Amino acid sequence: MSVTYRDAGVDLDVAEEVAAALRTRIHTGLFGGFLPVPQLKAYDLPVLVSSIDGVGTKVHLATQLDRVEGLGQDIVHHCVNDIAVHGAEPLLFLDYLAFHRIEPSLVERIVTSIAAACEALGIRLAGGETAEMPLVYPEGRFDLAGAIVGAVDQARIVDGSAIRAGDVLLGLPSSGLHTNGYSLVQHLFYADEYDRYERALGTTLGEALLAPHHCYLPEIRCLLATETVHGLAHITGGGIEGNLGRIVPGGLAARIDVPEPPPLFRYLAASGIDETEMRAVFNMGIGMIAVCDPAVVKQIGCYPIIGRIEGGDSEGRSVIWA
Amino acid sequence: MSVTYRDAGVDLDVAEEVAAALRTRIHTGLFGGFLPVPQLKAYDLPVLVSSIDGVGTKVHLATQLDRVEGLGQDIVHHCVNDIAVHGAEPLLFLDYLAFHRIEPSLVERIVTSIAAACEALGIRLAGGETAEMPLVYPEGRFDLAGAIVGAVDQARIVDGSAIRAGDVLLGLPSSGLHTNGYSLVQHLFYADEYDRYERALGTTLGEALLAPHHCYLPEIRCLLATETVHGLAHITGGGIEGNLGRIVPGGLAARIDVPEPPPLFRYLAASGIDETEMRAVFNMGIGMIAVCDPAVVKQIGCYPIIGRIEGGDSEGRSVIWA
Repeated sequence: MSVTYRDAGVDLDVAEEVAAALRTRIHTGLFGGFLPVPQLKAYDLPVLVSSIDGVGTKVHLATQLDRVEGLGQDIVHHCVNDIAVHGAEPLLFLDYLAFHRIEPSLVERIVTSIAAACEALGIRLAGGETAEMPLVYPEGRFDLAGAIVGAVDQARIVDGSAIRAGDVLLGLPSSGLHTNGYSLVQHLFYADEYDRYERALGTTLGEALLAPHHCYLPEIRCLLATETVHGLAHITGGGIEGNLGRIVPGGLAARIDVPEPPPLFRYLAASGIDETEMRAVFNMGIGMIAVCDPAVVKQIGCYPIIGRIEGGDSEGRSVIWA
Repeated sequence: MSVTYRDAGVDLDVAEEVAAALRTRIHTGLFGGFLPVPQLKAYDLPVLVSSIDGVGTKVHLATQLDRVEGLGQDIVHHCVNDIAVHGAEPLLFLDYLAFHRIEPSLVERIVTSIAAACEALGIRLAGGETAEMPLVYPEGRFDLAGAIVGAVDQARIVDGSAIRAGDVLLGLPSSGLHTNGYSLVQHLFYADEYDRYERALGTTLGEALLAPHHCYLPEIRCLLATETVHGLAHITGGGIEGNLGRIVPGGLAARIDVPEPPPLFRYLAASGIDETEMRAVFNMGIGMIAVCDPAVVKQIGCYPIIGRIEGGDSEGRSVIWA
């Protein structure tokens, strides 16, 4: 008896073929990927800012609907936003894809979308791993994760510590659910409901749910240029309260009055998710909150003001809903 | 009817509890993790070297045998080796863990092992993501990936381009299978075979298979100090031929004569894997190959010489087995 990797459900030829195809797209070295960063020498004190994340079970919905082309923007934008909130400029991105069995056409479509999202933002796609793990993933299932590294000069780090009473909160609109709440959503609907046109959404439910995660980098750059930004919160898992609460300093509180959420959120609420749960899971139409000196209003004045910073209340809450 | 995330199989409280526990261990910021890198200003041209990888289905075997404590070294050392072969010093590491359902004690054990592996090498554990994805992972299954970033001064990049005829190949011993070939291995054995003491291995099969991936960073630093190193190959998936072949320049070939592999590899061969497959999948006892000027032998002289670089043969092979 002679046993091969193929018998064990792993096809080395397919893995190598996929790796070879990807090499043209990924600026990788041999074992690691290279990125010269001469610009860091000009920083007074360069600080690397990094993050790693997945897109949750949005991968599952995208696969079910055979619409995986948005996943590149989902994972890249999610990661870019997570370091942009600290004032960092993105430098490089790495992706991780793991399958029951590598599907070359699926890998091709997803990595193409990742490469395009990176290229649009001037980020180096420095490497990636495509793994075949029949013992971990069931047939037809896969996972996608990404890691990002950027840099900021230490004196320019944004971390919320400059937030003070009287600051205003600007709410930057989201493009949909971004990458949170998909296990809950997929628990609510039957497979045949996603392709049905929904008048309230102006599109199908599937289309609305798969809208790619919005990238806030250009808007954040613009806001930072006003020198009024005291804190930025990326609204992901945990919703507005969970994420805004992380940057409000002790002794202060954000009193917020969020406008009525866009149709998709009202549609989900009407499908049976209660209000408290909605707020704990979803971004409610606001994917990024900028906490700024009120001077920002004169300088920018285009984003809705969704709240203000005031002295903390006796219960020590950092976020108070109006 | 009111539906919650818990109904969908996701427990936000557990996720938050785990996140809070990990914050003490991970030097993360709020959304991204910070690492000041003043040392890069002293480089003539700093180059970031990065890599992302998983540990394959070794996670599955480690879980089955309830011995996950080695996984931290597995993922960290795998990543460290992948950038150390380019002469880079590691700076920061990020981990990704995804579950059917987050098991706090398992997360705790794995992240503790990752943090310890990072700390031992002076690497900043700059962030991590722990995801609960009931729609992607079956019950009891999980995946682990990691990303690393290091730096090297451009003039000191090692990429094999300096390799020339007459160079010697040093074989640095592996500690076992490292992180490759585990789907194949788990196809060969029944669950009750792992705990049986094997005289040939001097331990149980499970113990031998779960030996953590060896870290070559100290040895690579020592070799680089001799200024004789022309290329380094980390022997992972694809075996010696697949990985050494990546760094041998065109027109040259590595003629290798690998010593008899350690007992674990002979044990696996005897269990029914043919020789060609063994070589294509496993490291055969050599986890790192250093291609060096022969002067290295006088300076170091402690690693077995497993081959030499010569002019390429008419078939254009880059690796020729003696």
